[in-house]
Amino acid sequence: MSFSRGTNTLNISVKLFVENRARLVAALKESYFFWTFGVHESDFFGVIDIGSGRTCLFPPKLDPSYAIWDGKINDENWFKKKYEVEEVHFNKDDAICAYLKKINAKNVLLLKASNSDSGNVLEAPSFIGKELFDIDVDKLYPVMAELRVFKTDKELEASFSGYVMRYVSKVASEAHRAAMKANLTINFLTYLPQCSSVFRHISYYHGGCRHLAYTCIAASGYNSSILHYGHANAPNDKQIKDGDICLLDMGPEYNCYASDITTSFPANGKFSDKQKLIYNAVLDANQSVFKAAKPGVRWTDMHILAEKVILTHLKEAGLVTGDVNEMVDARLGAVFMPHGLGHFIGLDVHDCGGYLGDALPRSMLPGLKSLRTTRTLQERMVITIEPGCYFIDTLLNAALENPNQSKYLVKSEVEKYRGQGGVRIEDDVIIWSNGNENMSDLPRTVEEIEDFMKNGEFTDETVQKSISHHLHKT
Amino acid sequence: MSFSRGTNTLNISVKLFVENRARLVAALKESYFFWTFGVHESDFFGVIDIGSGRTCLFPPKLDPSYAIWDGKINDENWFKKKYEVEEVHFNKDDAICAYLKKINAKNVLLLKASNSDSGNVLEAPSFIGKELFDIDVDKLYPVMAELRVFKTDKELEASFSGYVMRYVSKVASEAHRAAMKANLTINFLTYLPQCSSVFRHISYYHGGCRHLAYTCIAASGYNSSILHYGHANAPNDKQIKDGDICLLDMGPEYNCYASDITTSFPANGKFSDKQKLIYNAVLDANQSVFKAAKPGVRWTDMHILAEKVILTHLKEAGLVTGDVNEMVDARLGAVFMPHGLGHFIGLDVHDCGGYLGDALPRSMLPGLKSLRTTRTLQERMVITIEPGCYFIDTLLNAALENPNQSKYLVKSEVEKYRGQGGVRIEDDVIIWSNGNENMSDLPRTVEEIEDFMKNGEFTDETVQKSISHHLHKT
Repeated sequence: MSFSRGTNTLNISVKLFVENRARLVAALKESYFFWTFGVHESDFFGVIDIGSGRTCLFPPKLDPSYAIWDGKINDENWFKKKYEVEEVHFNKDDAICAYLKKINAKNVLLLKASNSDSGNVLEAPSFIGKELFDIDVDKLYPVMAELRVFKTDKELEASFSGYVMRYVSKVASEAHRAAMKANLTINFLTYLPQCSSVFRHISYYHGGCRHLAYTCIAASGYNSSILHYGHANAPNDKQIKDGDICLLDMGPEYNCYASDITTSFPANGKFSDKQKLIYNAVLDANQSVFKAAKPGVRWTDMHILAEKVILTHLKEAGLVTGDVNEMVDARLGAVFMPHGLGHFIGLDVHDCGGYLGDALPRSMLPGLKSLRTTRTLQERMVITIEPGCYFIDTLLNAALENPNQSKYLVKSEVEKYRGQGGVRIEDDVIIWSNGNENMSDLPRTVEEIEDFMKNGEFTDETVQKSISHHLHKT
Repeated sequence: MSFSRGTNTLNISVKLFVENRARLVAALKESYFFWTFGVHESDFFGVIDIGSGRTCLFPPKLDPSYAIWDGKINDENWFKKKYEVEEVHFNKDDAICAYLKKINAKNVLLLKASNSDSGNVLEAPSFIGKELFDIDVDKLYPVMAELRVFKTDKELEASFSGYVMRYVSKVASEAHRAAMKANLTINFLTYLPQCSSVFRHISYYHGGCRHLAYTCIAASGYNSSILHYGHANAPNDKQIKDGDICLLDMGPEYNCYASDITTSFPANGKFSDKQKLIYNAVLDANQSVFKAAKPGVRWTDMHILAEKVILTHLKEAGLVTGDVNEMVDARLGAVFMPHGLGHFIGLDVHDCGGYLGDALPRSMLPGLKSLRTTRTLQERMVITIEPGCYFIDTLLNAALENPNQSKYLVKSEVEKYRGQGGVRIEDDVIIWSNGNENMSDLPRTVEEIEDFMKNGEFTDETVQKSISHHLHKT
């Protein structure tokens, strides 16, 4: 069985999840537990018997009126075939308890998960007869989270038809191109909602991505320095003006796998000198990290590298003065880039596992405290590289009043950049030992962007061709 | 102050909400309470002092880091001007309690609301020092819900710039036209997600409607008989086929005001004889109710009227036989139309107040039990008229086995219609004593639809012109 959203959208085999379960069984032979089965319907339970490797799904027992209001009611066998599991029982009465008794379960590991960024906790599931078993809610989460950090071939790439993460990044890239051109098409009469509307439409219409992985951040001018601009209180409703820099941080999801890509470009298609300077600093940071981020390298060090590259550019341009290493120690980098360098990405846009494994405890220092992982990199991790440089009044004012930081700032030069907003360049990257892979596919240098916005073709036909070519090239 | 989402999208004056509060004060002079202030930001509280008519807003006191991550922090005066209220205090510590003491409040009415369809309850808000006052959570809700049933000029129409509900219905109509044409453009290669993607895009890009009022129901063929098709478990992922009937039930919201419109049309642009028969039965029901739904008429009777019109058409076509009034008594109408005829619409797509006022208790009978209101109509109510006729296997099988119903069914003829799916025609209507107003603006007769799908122009320019004409015609 497979999952797709239409012609020329990606087919995903359920084998992806069969392999996930096999990895789980192999990783945790001494125990048994739940994990994702690739089930799209709601309210399912699943049991894996580690001893036998057999898996059983428990779909909800639907009321007959479901057929009138909500759709076809499928039988147990239909789900068994669809999800390629050994057994299916409707979850009515004590079905789960009865099954656990049948397979002589004594210890039951339940998934209780917590998020190291938000602190949100997903409570362990309940079922009738739970009290008859020896329940553990602590063991499963770290094992599953750790497995999710490393992506399989089926999650990344194609042995047959499952290169999910590359696909969704491709769709995101096409949708970003459309948003860049949308902006230019009606030339300075475009509002930011229109950019996000175009993005969402291309993602859904051509890529079959019904949902976005997160709320669009679509900012221009000063707002591009507001890191999470675009939420309900500031709903991307600004008109784009001549001379503005646009910052679009947007990504669709497909089969629940997220993309997360940011473009920064001049609204009028031509970078000003100041915009070019900031942009090239950030691009250099992005590319330097892409090259240096090898297996064995700690992500914290990549964050520091990005700060150094950006500060070096600012120093060359005369905005800061002094020794770059000293600036880093004084946390001057966090004045210009207050957020973390990037995060794992997968089924969640901020994927799990960032503070497991060999992670260092979360820092208390500006910038570093916002890192969503401090681990050393390994093959098959998928991570965003998203350095940025912003001119944020609150932070600049505080730095100018702080003698430990103000001594590095050339106030007269910095003041010229106020109101410029900010630049962020974000790619979705797979870590490989023989060279990383950038799944984003966008014009990135100043020259490429100016050329694309002037001469680049972008039509329904070019998108269809691009996505379709991507689908068939394996 | 006003609210808009860009050039050629609607400007809504905050006066709309000033008038709402004035109506509330006038309606409930003996007490005081909260109501909507038209505030778009989250986590606000509001107090109205009925004695003086003064209103006070309490925005959340934001952490300084909000300026870095989320946007500009505004002061109290900014909110005072924006929302045209007499006082604003940040909600920190015991600010609300202190204000209530200052105005010598003793009895405090808090809003605790419940939904007569879902049974969901919105609990009354909490604040520090609540225990110092005499709290009532019962009085406010029925008064506010009743006021919301009757729409003001500012909610409907323009004394200046506030014809919100007509605007959002206009945007919905344009987006529906686009979805109908999208389907035809790529002729039978279109998947239903693509129709909803076009709808969402036109609503947002041209109409500034960031959100839809509800999940799109986009069905074709047999699925068009599944009333709420389109939710996450059945995500509109079907390919449209030659000969299919399409049923698109979709509506955007603007400034939180909802639209809710359904079109039914043949995928290939030409109705088959069977499709035409069903369609005309439903259209006749829709139009008959539109004409008969006057102030003083009970909505329950309109539901019965729709059943009778549909059954009369089915009788003429030989699918049912016997006396139509007897069929209604045997609840045969609910076999073909199991849902209610329509519902109030406003800030909620299923708006409040359906079982307040002179409403009859909810019926236990098929069809009638699904009515979202049983009230008599009055001027300024806004209600959907959405009769439908479906061929649902579950319901047909049950009716054929029920001697009280099967005697009216001509089995051989009914069987010919199985798999045809269903038709629903839904308009958003304002009740006026001198003739109702249909805010939907769509090709509706068989001839109009066939002509539109063959010859109708639909481009970005036609949408812009249509919305812009609508905005400027007052």
